[in-house]
Amino acid sequence: MTEFLPDKSLPQSVNGSSRQAFSTPLSNLSLQVTADHNLKLVEAPVYAPAKGEVLLHIKTTGVCGSDIHFWRHGRIGSLVVEGDCILGHEASGVVLECGEGVTTLVAGDRIAIEPGVPCGTCFLCMDGRYNLCEDVQFAGVYPYHGTIQRYKCHPAKWCHKLPSNVSFAEGALLEPLSVVMHGIKSAGLSLGRGAVICGAGPIGLLALAAARASGAHPLVITDLEPKRLDFAKKFVPTVVTYQVDRNLEAEANAKKIRALFDFENVGEYGAPETVLECTGVESSVVTAAHTARRGGTVMVIGVGKEIMNNLPFMHLSLAEIDLKFINRYRDTWPAGLQCLAGGILDLKPLVSHTFPLEKALDALHTCGDLSNGSIKVQIVDDRDDVF
Amino acid sequence: MTEFLPDKSLPQSVNGSSRQAFSTPLSNLSLQVTADHNLKLVEAPVYAPAKGEVLLHIKTTGVCGSDIHFWRHGRIGSLVVEGDCILGHEASGVVLECGEGVTTLVAGDRIAIEPGVPCGTCFLCMDGRYNLCEDVQFAGVYPYHGTIQRYKCHPAKWCHKLPSNVSFAEGALLEPLSVVMHGIKSAGLSLGRGAVICGAGPIGLLALAAARASGAHPLVITDLEPKRLDFAKKFVPTVVTYQVDRNLEAEANAKKIRALFDFENVGEYGAPETVLECTGVESSVVTAAHTARRGGTVMVIGVGKEIMNNLPFMHLSLAEIDLKFINRYRDTWPAGLQCLAGGILDLKPLVSHTFPLEKALDALHTCGDLSNGSIKVQIVDDRDDVF
Amino acid sequence: MTEFLPDKSLPQSVNGSSRQAFSTPLSNLSLQVTADHNLKLVEAPVYAPAKGEVLLHIKTTGVCGSDIHFWRHGRIGSLVVEGDCILGHEASGVVLECGEGVTTLVAGDRIAIEPGVPCGTCFLCMDGRYNLCEDVQFAGVYPYHGTIQRYKCHPAKWCHKLPSNVSFAEGALLEPLSVVMHGIKSAGLSLGRGAVICGAGPIGLLALAAARASGAHPLVITDLEPKRLDFAKKFVPTVVTYQVDRNLEAEANAKKIRALFDFENVGEYGAPETVLECTGVESSVVTAAHTARRGGTVMVIGVGKEIMNNLPFMHLSLAEIDLKFINRYRDTWPAGLQCLAGGILDLKPLVSHTFPLEKALDALHTCGDLSNGSIKVQIVDDRDDVF
Amino acid sequence: MTEFLPDKSLPQSVNGSSRQAFSTPLSNLSLQVTADHNLKLVEAPVYAPAKGEVLLHIKTTGVCGSDIHFWRHGRIGSLVVEGDCILGHEASGVVLECGEGVTTLVAGDRIAIEPGVPCGTCFLCMDGRYNLCEDVQFAGVYPYHGTIQRYKCHPAKWCHKLPSNVSFAEGALLEPLSVVMHGIKSAGLSLGRGAVICGAGPIGLLALAAARASGAHPLVITDLEPKRLDFAKKFVPTVVTYQVDRNLEAEANAKKIRALFDFENVGEYGAPETVLECTGVESSVVTAAHTARRGGTVMVIGVGKEIMNNLPFMHLSLAEIDLKFINRYRDTWPAGLQCLAGGILDLKPLVSHTFPLEKALDALHTCGDLSNGSIKVQIVDDRDDVF
Repeated sequence: MTEFLPDKSLPQSVNGSSRQAFSTPLSNLSLQVTADHNLKLVEAPVYAPAKGEVLLHIKTTGVCGSDIHFWRHGRIGSLVVEGDCILGHEASGVVLECGEGVTTLVAGDRIAIEPGVPCGTCFLCMDGRYNLCEDVQFAGVYPYHGTIQRYKCHPAKWCHKLPSNVSFAEGALLEPLSVVMHGIKSAGLSLGRGAVICGAGPIGLLALAAARASGAHPLVITDLEPKRLDFAKKFVPTVVTYQVDRNLEAEANAKKIRALFDFENVGEYGAPETVLECTGVESSVVTAAHTARRGGTVMVIGVGKEIMNNLPFMHLSLAEIDLKFINRYRDTWPAGLQCLAGGILDLKPLVSHTFPLEKALDALHTCGDLSNGSIKVQIVDDRDDVF
Repeated sequence: MTEFLPDKSLPQSVNGSSRQAFSTPLSNLSLQVTADHNLKLVEAPVYAPAKGEVLLHIKTTGVCGSDIHFWRHGRIGSLVVEGDCILGHEASGVVLECGEGVTTLVAGDRIAIEPGVPCGTCFLCMDGRYNLCEDVQFAGVYPYHGTIQRYKCHPAKWCHKLPSNVSFAEGALLEPLSVVMHGIKSAGLSLGRGAVICGAGPIGLLALAAARASGAHPLVITDLEPKRLDFAKKFVPTVVTYQVDRNLEAEANAKKIRALFDFENVGEYGAPETVLECTGVESSVVTAAHTARRGGTVMVIGVGKEIMNNLPFMHLSLAEIDLKFINRYRDTWPAGLQCLAGGILDLKPLVSHTFPLEKALDALHTCGDLSNGSIKVQIVDDRDDVF
Repeated sequence: MTEFLPDKSLPQSVNGSSRQAFSTPLSNLSLQVTADHNLKLVEAPVYAPAKGEVLLHIKTTGVCGSDIHFWRHGRIGSLVVEGDCILGHEASGVVLECGEGVTTLVAGDRIAIEPGVPCGTCFLCMDGRYNLCEDVQFAGVYPYHGTIQRYKCHPAKWCHKLPSNVSFAEGALLEPLSVVMHGIKSAGLSLGRGAVICGAGPIGLLALAAARASGAHPLVITDLEPKRLDFAKKFVPTVVTYQVDRNLEAEANAKKIRALFDFENVGEYGAPETVLECTGVESSVVTAAHTARRGGTVMVIGVGKEIMNNLPFMHLSLAEIDLKFINRYRDTWPAGLQCLAGGILDLKPLVSHTFPLEKALDALHTCGDLSNGSIKVQIVDDRDDVF
Repeated sequence: MTEFLPDKSLPQSVNGSSRQAFSTPLSNLSLQVTADHNLKLVEAPVYAPAKGEVLLHIKTTGVCGSDIHFWRHGRIGSLVVEGDCILGHEASGVVLECGEGVTTLVAGDRIAIEPGVPCGTCFLCMDGRYNLCEDVQFAGVYPYHGTIQRYKCHPAKWCHKLPSNVSFAEGALLEPLSVVMHGIKSAGLSLGRGAVICGAGPIGLLALAAARASGAHPLVITDLEPKRLDFAKKFVPTVVTYQVDRNLEAEANAKKIRALFDFENVGEYGAPETVLECTGVESSVVTAAHTARRGGTVMVIGVGKEIMNNLPFMHLSLAEIDLKFINRYRDTWPAGLQCLAGGILDLKPLVSHTFPLEKALDALHTCGDLSNGSIKVQIVDDRDDVF
């Protein structure tokens, strides 16, 4: 491990060689992606919490599609894996020790991690849009180490205390839930108004749950896979499912989806005001554009290829449909925690597979193989701390 | 009944002396308020549906505080009871016959009535703000007859078909629900963000249900009466109740309400972003102003006296709190029906008392006497039509 | 002219064979496009104003790119020229006679025409979005005759009185100005914040004038043609011009445009919050997407091809840029008239060519040949009425 | 000067006794208000710029009504003058020396001061609403020393570079302009739509200029004093003035103001959508409430007494008028500077009186005596620096 990079998942002022090791020697298993597209489960250094940081015992990390993407493709857009990097950013844990100046947390606190640490001083940070900060340090995105390790330092400011009735598993779901909450807030669902969710993967299912909790109705969820739609129907029984027909054009699929909304023959009025596109796949975005009500909104939550073709430009223009995009989230953990603690959202059924940290490689392989039918795979480390 | 006014609850082009009687003689019991503050239960004429209208058998009308106010005070603001006027505007019924040109309804259709008929041509109507139309013809507001009668004509456009699983009782609740839905849409609740509802009367309880269905959390409801708060708690178990202390200043009550939100000691951050003021009482509005989070919104849904004093002007200014107002509703029936049909809202527990049309006077007396503890009193006419 | 279609530029209830000829025989020269892509200048019938209509003497009509498109291509999207149709929709005129029920205008009134007559009853009309009405009857779009004729009937409701200091030429500019005003209102410019206008054609120049009048600053306008940019600079001297480099990729042009905003080295902060895309050309939309500030808005005002490719999907997502579209306008004539009458906007320099009605064919050829360097070509009919 | 308080106009981490004196002895004349309601012109210490700060030579400070209020009343709401405090917060100057870590400014830079230094870490700061920060350190509000002194330290982050064509006098006007810009942005003026400005004092005149630059039209400004209205008319010739009649009720004044908008007899449609209330006087706010168009907005920019009475509650409710409030500003200096540098706003005529720093007492007495007809009084220090 002598060649191991210093932990950069911290404010730049304390990164690099000056980073100090934690006083007590601890075994810190970590899952790392390499620049040559391999995964390895190896020991990593444990650092002492710097000023404003806490040292955490990571209890749960969910595996995200982006982790699989970094492993297999080595990059997402301009983010390139140039060296060994610990993966993981959907995490919860326990505070082991507080660095200097930390007043909001104490050892033993159970917390959920908000993985992106924005600079705090750029105009986007100052404008309340810290999710757009160009200098964000995001856990699990090279060169910032992630959460699939046992011990990790993180700024206390970006750790959110878990209420006693919220489990670590739920705490780790706050990260993908946040994406969805930000999308829904930007799109603006409303009580008793229809919405479509495109895609019944983890993000689509979270969007479905959040849309239901927001009172939007009727809800339709679409996917290519009947199994995923079956799961969606069990998860939120009031949803209507639509299996996308690969043999149809986007416009034809859209027509069929719209027909599911025709409450009392109200025609265009009944069409969904909002489409939450959760796949990032071109044909799905085009279908979404044809599905939204005149004057409605397509909120693109999913991420996809660099370039998108076949956008129905004149249709968007004549129907005056807004095409909105989001990048991650801002100020969503507290609201998400309220939903979980208050019983507004029950996300526990989404965790389909659980692996101990020692079997983290299996977790990634399970998540990466769609034939497993996994929804959310989580890596947990249940053992008590003894130091 | 020879002196009975023509039914003006119709577009002006067909009102007045030219209005034709319905072809079949029908007994039409009606509850009327008089200019000298009396109520009477008398027969009223039945008219043939004019062009674009339907003749309805009114099955249910809810009694509203404004009905009581017109009876006892003879006016609400500039709206004065200058002659006999049939009360009632929270109604549902069945279509008996369609006038010329009606294509959206047929005899036998079960419908909910949207009682205000706007002019359709003023700039406010054309701007989508028909609730602000200065020429609205509103059922039950003199000189436009209301719905506490057996048979009434109404424009088909303002009748909304009831799905088969929505009862007449629920259909009649759409009118007060609409007030609340318009307020919530204007105020903008969001998932996992706190809100306060001031007042646990019918509007406050509907606001509570709608806020819960919108995913706002935590929710606090306030009232002076413990019984009403008990009802609220049974109706929506996740709500926290606060009994307003008459001996405290508004600011002190506000402080106690805010303390109920201090989730994990987050201070001002946890204070409610939105306060839905459903009483229209000055001290409650002032309390609401002190309760909202810095940068938040007080949405005044309740109506009250002409003039309000004691508004904490500098506090509103320094905390940058928006004081918003609504007048009735627009485009809310379809969304409300979706909520009822889809199980998003269950309002049935709100109907505390039911009286047959023949006992409509008892209904008004029950509603008007607060000691009865009534929530929503409805007047129903269950008999089958025989004509 | 026996085969001439009845004037359909009216509500459908009065169209077709029942339409009555005007009582006085009048010579009504008109410019018509044919189904086989020809233009002809021929006499057309004059109708009596139906209920709610006025008969107008059209004094000025501006030629629009869509007129040229209908002539040369026979269609714009789903709008197809299936028979002879009088072109023109940017018009002003004088009221000659009022039909039954017209109370807002009298003979002699000078007016500007709002050419689209929406149905007034669909949900979009009732929601204040009448520009999205699916049953709009739009002058100059087959089968609704346009304004390049001497005498035309139009609903009084869609005629806007010209203040005495607003000329017919200016009145006819209100239609394209309206497109721009709707786009700017939807996009949301603000005082002292930068904006880019893509395209220095008539719509781009109107957008430039309106953006300047709205206080946005700095303003940059782009085009391929130096002559157009020179005109823009004379028209609004505070604008900065940028000649698009055909040899550069969209992203590279965007980078150069952004550099023009770097006021005091503020970097991304200084980039334009809003880009008003006025060409509808794919490469320009893509450039716009790369030009807008993180979190900004691209407002697509221009119309173009059915399908758009090469949209920088991930960039829009990571930078959280809204891609908004508009369809024509709503409620813009009164505000536009205020701007013209009050000296807020001076659009007179935009009229580069004027032709008498008798030379309407020359007007279209002039407008259709880009080498003429025309900005706005107008067809005028100055003679006094003698009937 | 032994009893002189340390300069607290700095982040708390460097305030108090640890603050270091500037290395070169400098004579620093300052205008101070005392706890017993007196003014004194005395020498004050000069400090070395701490980390992130710059030492400034203050060239111009405008006198604000709040300075007069602190002097005469010793408090504004909860802000109490408990000891000697240097007044002044509308300021511009030149950088003399940069503290550690300052990279955005160099000695000799001309800057405008944003006087409020928010904490940067509370949820309001992180949400882009730093103007609502509860821990803001505001220059000239006890215990934070202001700008009516020759030399002052201020964080570089809150100093905005002046373009070369913007004078110190204009730079000092950015502070009150910012109040108005924040109000207008929150209220939402639009091109060709009417607005009213209540009050023709400095804030009202700035609001008038900014509203004109934003393209709102027609504009009406109101005041009790004909002289102020005369000035307004000269300052912005397209404005219509209205002298408030003390003998009329608010509603009657409102009716007369509305009549000034009745363009082409359009009635309520023509009434102003937005009223910018710039006095904070109760009767003016009530007039504003009656003046706004149905569905419009009253933006309260002026500050006034703690409590406001006589609010027309039912009118606001029936007309659905939003009553909005602002507290200072956020992110307005750059936009204001663009307006001044780009010629979008010309505020120079507002400076009616200028006094050298040595006569600062005269400046305050001139501003405090309304009979002088002053608009904006500024204190300047023109001498070159020699150190």
